[in-house]
Amino acid sequence: MRDINNYIDKLKKLNFSDMYNNDFILTWEKTRDELEAVFTVADTLRYLREENISTRIFDSGLGISLFRDNSTRTRFSFSSACNLLGLEVQDLEEGKSQIAHGETVRETANMISFMADVIGIRDDMYIGKGNKYIRDFSKYVRQGNEDGVLEQRPTLVNLQCDIDHPTQTMADMLHLIHHFNGIENLKGKKIAMTWAYSPSYGKPLSVPQGIVGLMTRMGMDVVLAHPEGYEIMSDVEEVAKRNAQESGGTFTKTNSMEEAFKDADIVYPKSWAPFAAMEKRTNLYGMGDMNGIERLEKELLARNKEHIDWQCTEELMNMTKDKKALYMHCLPADITSISCKTGEVAASVFNRYRIPLYKQASYKPYVIAAMILLSKVKNPAELFTNLYNNPKKRKFD
Amino acid sequence: MRDINNYIDKLKKLNFSDMYNNDFILTWEKTRDELEAVFTVADTLRYLREENISTRIFDSGLGISLFRDNSTRTRFSFSSACNLLGLEVQDLEEGKSQIAHGETVRETANMISFMADVIGIRDDMYIGKGNKYIRDFSKYVRQGNEDGVLEQRPTLVNLQCDIDHPTQTMADMLHLIHHFNGIENLKGKKIAMTWAYSPSYGKPLSVPQGIVGLMTRMGMDVVLAHPEGYEIMSDVEEVAKRNAQESGGTFTKTNSMEEAFKDADIVYPKSWAPFAAMEKRTNLYGMGDMNGIERLEKELLARNKEHIDWQCTEELMNMTKDKKALYMHCLPADITSISCKTGEVAASVFNRYRIPLYKQASYKPYVIAAMILLSKVKNPAELFTNLYNNPKKRKFD
Amino acid sequence: MRDINNYIDKLKKLNFSDMYNNDFILTWEKTRDELEAVFTVADTLRYLREENISTRIFDSGLGISLFRDNSTRTRFSFSSACNLLGLEVQDLEEGKSQIAHGETVRETANMISFMADVIGIRDDMYIGKGNKYIRDFSKYVRQGNEDGVLEQRPTLVNLQCDIDHPTQTMADMLHLIHHFNGIENLKGKKIAMTWAYSPSYGKPLSVPQGIVGLMTRMGMDVVLAHPEGYEIMSDVEEVAKRNAQESGGTFTKTNSMEEAFKDADIVYPKSWAPFAAMEKRTNLYGMGDMNGIERLEKELLARNKEHIDWQCTEELMNMTKDKKALYMHCLPADITSISCKTGEVAASVFNRYRIPLYKQASYKPYVIAAMILLSKVKNPAELFTNLYNNPKKRKFD
Repeated sequence: MRDINNYIDKLKKLNFSDMYNNDFILTWEKTRDELEAVFTVADTLRYLREENISTRIFDSGLGISLFRDNSTRTRFSFSSACNLLGLEVQDLEEGKSQIAHGETVRETANMISFMADVIGIRDDMYIGKGNKYIRDFSKYVRQGNEDGVLEQRPTLVNLQCDIDHPTQTMADMLHLIHHFNGIENLKGKKIAMTWAYSPSYGKPLSVPQGIVGLMTRMGMDVVLAHPEGYEIMSDVEEVAKRNAQESGGTFTKTNSMEEAFKDADIVYPKSWAPFAAMEKRTNLYGMGDMNGIERLEKELLARNKEHIDWQCTEELMNMTKDKKALYMHCLPADITSISCKTGEVAASVFNRYRIPLYKQASYKPYVIAAMILLSKVKNPAELFTNLYNNPKKRKFD
Repeated sequence: MRDINNYIDKLKKLNFSDMYNNDFILTWEKTRDELEAVFTVADTLRYLREENISTRIFDSGLGISLFRDNSTRTRFSFSSACNLLGLEVQDLEEGKSQIAHGETVRETANMISFMADVIGIRDDMYIGKGNKYIRDFSKYVRQGNEDGVLEQRPTLVNLQCDIDHPTQTMADMLHLIHHFNGIENLKGKKIAMTWAYSPSYGKPLSVPQGIVGLMTRMGMDVVLAHPEGYEIMSDVEEVAKRNAQESGGTFTKTNSMEEAFKDADIVYPKSWAPFAAMEKRTNLYGMGDMNGIERLEKELLARNKEHIDWQCTEELMNMTKDKKALYMHCLPADITSISCKTGEVAASVFNRYRIPLYKQASYKPYVIAAMILLSKVKNPAELFTNLYNNPKKRKFD
Repeated sequence: MRDINNYIDKLKKLNFSDMYNNDFILTWEKTRDELEAVFTVADTLRYLREENISTRIFDSGLGISLFRDNSTRTRFSFSSACNLLGLEVQDLEEGKSQIAHGETVRETANMISFMADVIGIRDDMYIGKGNKYIRDFSKYVRQGNEDGVLEQRPTLVNLQCDIDHPTQTMADMLHLIHHFNGIENLKGKKIAMTWAYSPSYGKPLSVPQGIVGLMTRMGMDVVLAHPEGYEIMSDVEEVAKRNAQESGGTFTKTNSMEEAFKDADIVYPKSWAPFAAMEKRTNLYGMGDMNGIERLEKELLARNKEHIDWQCTEELMNMTKDKKALYMHCLPADITSISCKTGEVAASVFNRYRIPLYKQASYKPYVIAAMILLSKVKNPAELFTNLYNNPKKRKFD
């Protein structure tokens, strides 16, 4: 049963002191206790909002968002999270500001951060760039704070990079925790993170990488499936292996979608571009070869076509545990006969899971808010006790 | 005399319980009591702001704006209304988010609404599309709320569609109420909603339609005047006829601007494109025929030229009641010799009415805020009593 | 020692009553007391923020920003200032709103200001335009307020025009006040405002003009150095002469960078385009001659090249007082071998002064907030006493 005291008791048992005044960049840099703290704080924030209790921990302050490609969902999730805590969002649009990489990142990081409590960055298209960019930003604002330039140290939140997509995968896991009625019930569950056919474009690797990097933390049986040649970063595979060993789960790979789906409790079929192609794209981008990138994109789609049978069909779903594995997707999906002729998933499957899919997405603002809160508030248990006992209405009714 | 108790007493006498947790899409879907509630709440909000009393009913929360064409005035009115109530505005820019119609509207509606208390949509250029889009959004977020995806049900506010422009026309009427010193004094007043010549582009129908649909509610004599061929939607004409009958007013049509102006108390000369042309544009758009749209636009302007004598001149103004009818416009106007060579209105007329025109516009933020408040607050009379008796300053002075 | 009572005592001694409900457009329109009030309020706001005390003087309200060219730094400084005081920022993007000069400025000024407490405008590229635009805006909103259209009179803040850049130069001076440990210690200090070579584009005149217009107020020895032909506005030179006479300082001009640097306590080397060229650009713009503007830009860069030796090198720095003058720049700088092949400043000089440069920039949000506050609050000493004695936390910790 949902009860504020359960959340508060849980928080009191967890050790997450290192999260204070710190960033959230990769899930595998966090301890299990720290991950559980995020889930618990996210659930508490949602509970308080549903009880119409304000969770503003800021009277004023800015949340800066820096998106290096178009985004609706993540943009709104970040805005919602900031608003929930009392921060106003200011977008840093690079088109408007002509920021370049290199020396000026340091300057930009300081110039936008005079009042910034949090900076969310999404930079996922180029291998070796996005994660580095977030870490550079973090380093520079930490220095700016130490040098007396910045009054506070802004928290960096990774809103998707070339390596991980922690706000997505943590929301995904919170969805699983609710679906299976407790984090302890994830142990032993089989999850299939599989490649799926897409006719649209070469998609980033951060979701499959983030999923195998996170789901292996909880003793699950994680299967990564893709056609030959669609490898993800080998470093992340190593992380997944190590995680599985430590948590008492497994991490296996296969080139068969059927094998992955067989008896799975959860399936996560989603397209991505091969790591080697992503690297090639990065190099072409570095040389400014836009024609080369366009050619590469065409090659990728042609190559995808060779694996057009990698679709999440009803037949495949029937192979899963009791024929009713939980279908997951980070959205938007390429849905056969709806958003495209042939895509990642059959319309009947997608439509049957629409409500769970939307719920899955609905955890993201709370997860982001939890990451911010844990970096800003030393004693969340005390905070929540105060908020609950001296409630301020979020909305007059 | 303005007095908080007058407003509160008035609210207590009105029945507007259906507005709670509901949308504002067309004025003719609302009862007369509900319309009066909007005017009364708008006046109260303005009064409290002028008394430097905060009217924040939200401690946090988002107002989403979705504009499908450029807009300054409506954008700022919506922002102002949200800010007045304590909501932060987040724009959904379709260029940034690649939303398509159809299946994905449902998904978008849910994905942007996790913290959304209100969604304002402006979509006025294509017949049969804009109003439907607003209603689809409304349906999907209501479902999202019922399904447990959304913690709250966001209120939809129509910021201009292909059928009506309720935030404009309600502000227009509030201006009339103040000008004529009471809603009861509108009865029997003659208002001329007339077409006027414009050299700029084929303008939407929502204002003339909204005006005849609303002004006929109050027992006014509403005259719709336009050249032959410049018809508005026949459905809306039916609404106006029915309204006039019920309210004890009249609704008449003429092809003569002089006839419309004769003895009018109020004139509203404004250009629009013929309904048939708007439908044609919609079909061309549906076929992706942008050249066809450009050709149509040229035809429209050429056709407008045949009626270049439909201008609001001093001569025409002299035909109105006591030669001093109230001139209205939703702005911006095509002003002869100022914003164009020949336009909707003579510069001398426009300049003489500049202050009333700006006042007319100034009601819009309060009208929008009233629409939001009536959907969010069950007992506004109680709210206002509280705000007034335990005032919080909007601005420290 | 920083102490809230020092700030409050200082404020009590200054006369700045004319700033209430007024604009901030040019520093030389303000008395010395008024300038000191800005510095004192800025310092107090920073102090309170560092003490985690909220300085929200607005419960709701809008700050409108109107930038006529791209900007990151000023945009974020303005947003930060507004947020610090409790105002939400709404951008007026002209691309989105199609505002023209002339008649419609009056209309726009009113239409965006229904809830606007402050309007920040940046319009620096065309001589004779930007300052006028700000003053027009101010006049129209004042009229709108008097006419009963606007409930409040928005404060205009000049975020950079063709004549002055007061938020920059006031932040610069606040940096000097802290660097030299008191405004009284500026007297007799030599500051070199010198032209420097840039390969990027013809930069505005507002910084050098603003610097000589402001620094001459405090009894400093202000030297303006530039190659022949790179004159600034002669009107501003007259202002600087008069200021120097009144304050007991000096204002001299030279065509030698060495002479300017010799024994200087402060150096501010920065590129700008000659006034005559800026005028020519304005005329070309007026005629819509974009090719002409492009040609002019090329001529300007070619002409700059003739003075490629005007760089802030270590040799030049060694000529300054004790070889360690304070190096200043409004950022971003053209840094030799970092942001360009050859630019305004040597990398070793820039890097040595990076932290002071960032601190210099960090005063801007507080200076802007002080300008707004002094226009909105009649008795800031009383305000700060209240905020300090009944503190509300900015951030729960």
